[in-house]
Amino acid sequence: MNKTKEITVLERVSKKNEEIVKEIRTIFGENSIICFNIMGSPGSGKTTLIEKTIEKLKDKKTIAVIEGDLATTIDAERIREYGVDVLQINTGGMCHLDAQLIRNALSKMDLSAIDILFIENVGNLVCPSSHDLGEDYRVILASVPEGPHKPKKYPVIYKEADVVVITKADILEHFPDFSIEVLFGHAIEIKPDIKTIKVALKGEDIQIDDWVYWLENVEPKK
Amino acid sequence: MNKTKEITVLERVSKKNEEIVKEIRTIFGENSIICFNIMGSPGSGKTTLIEKTIEKLKDKKTIAVIEGDLATTIDAERIREYGVDVLQINTGGMCHLDAQLIRNALSKMDLSAIDILFIENVGNLVCPSSHDLGEDYRVILASVPEGPHKPKKYPVIYKEADVVVITKADILEHFPDFSIEVLFGHAIEIKPDIKTIKVALKGEDIQIDDWVYWLENVEPKK
Repeated sequence: MNKTKEITVLERVSKKNEEIVKEIRTIFGENSIICFNIMGSPGSGKTTLIEKTIEKLKDKKTIAVIEGDLATTIDAERIREYGVDVLQINTGGMCHLDAQLIRNALSKMDLSAIDILFIENVGNLVCPSSHDLGEDYRVILASVPEGPHKPKKYPVIYKEADVVVITKADILEHFPDFSIEVLFGHAIEIKPDIKTIKVALKGEDIQIDDWVYWLENVEPKK
Repeated sequence: MNKTKEITVLERVSKKNEEIVKEIRTIFGENSIICFNIMGSPGSGKTTLIEKTIEKLKDKKTIAVIEGDLATTIDAERIREYGVDVLQINTGGMCHLDAQLIRNALSKMDLSAIDILFIENVGNLVCPSSHDLGEDYRVILASVPEGPHKPKKYPVIYKEADVVVITKADILEHFPDFSIEVLFGHAIEIKPDIKTIKVALKGEDIQIDDWVYWLENVEPKK
């Protein structure tokens, strides 16, 4: 009897989460919002990728951002400088965002105005992988200084990702052990249809066009 | 009655974990092992720090290493090249090591021979902070490419750490936004007595002496 009771509770929680994800998808559909869940290690360049993308697209698209961090509003403050709608979620000790947090955030945003919504997840290659936020696409960042073996070491997050973006390619020459081909090869081994993109967001030779082209042309999943 | 039963179970689990940590501490004490729990983001340089430390100390101390990763034996293979005892733990989906895993690993090692044990935790700035592995010291790595704000964004792991080591200082000049003083300042704000060390482990001007000096002279905590 005890066992049955416990199972019922678990089912209810799980169903609730699924329902919240469904609600989020409906909101995105009704408001013609395409949503990208940006994941990666701490310091892999998630906020910088969003900043540079806003710079490129702000005259064509209305972009909004949900920032996820354990603490502080550092990233949200950076994004606000670009004049876009941004909302910071502080998770406290939690190592990922979840659908309930996103649902609450959406209730505070001017949804009808948004074309593209970026959700910057907590910097982590483990926890975010098992949490559906209702996003259209999951983007995993792999920065050059992290080395080329992250897809093999953190296979779950790569298996769930649609796109892998190599960041900090502007400092590639200082990492002789790094190989873009090796990293992309590992990623494709884990997820054969993963899209691979390279960006360089600082220095003199900015490379972001492949990423922006993909973003502008990709269709919502629903 | 149900409630009481549930509480009993939780107490038993918690006590068991504490007991395992106590067992580990006894093992370290009996075998005169000093143990360092090395934590940091994926790609922050944890394995490289251990490699370079072995190079410096291998003629003076017997070093052993426990490697924690979700998957693969990549890091353990790197360490094995240095001729030291190394054991790989694969956590599957788990974002940290725990005392039970360490206790099992220790049962497979030649403990009486070990002076220094490094435990390389899963690359993560959240989950490892709440898991006591019986270590003497917790070391948190902060690599230059991650930026100077990680202590503020991930305060819990810094609060639990004894030492913060800035890694990849050899490429400092390519990160004009990075300031060692700012990072150390944030770390000290969170944990006033945290020890601060800078290392550069690649390139022409290797800097590791401060770290090695501290390692050689620090006393076991018990």
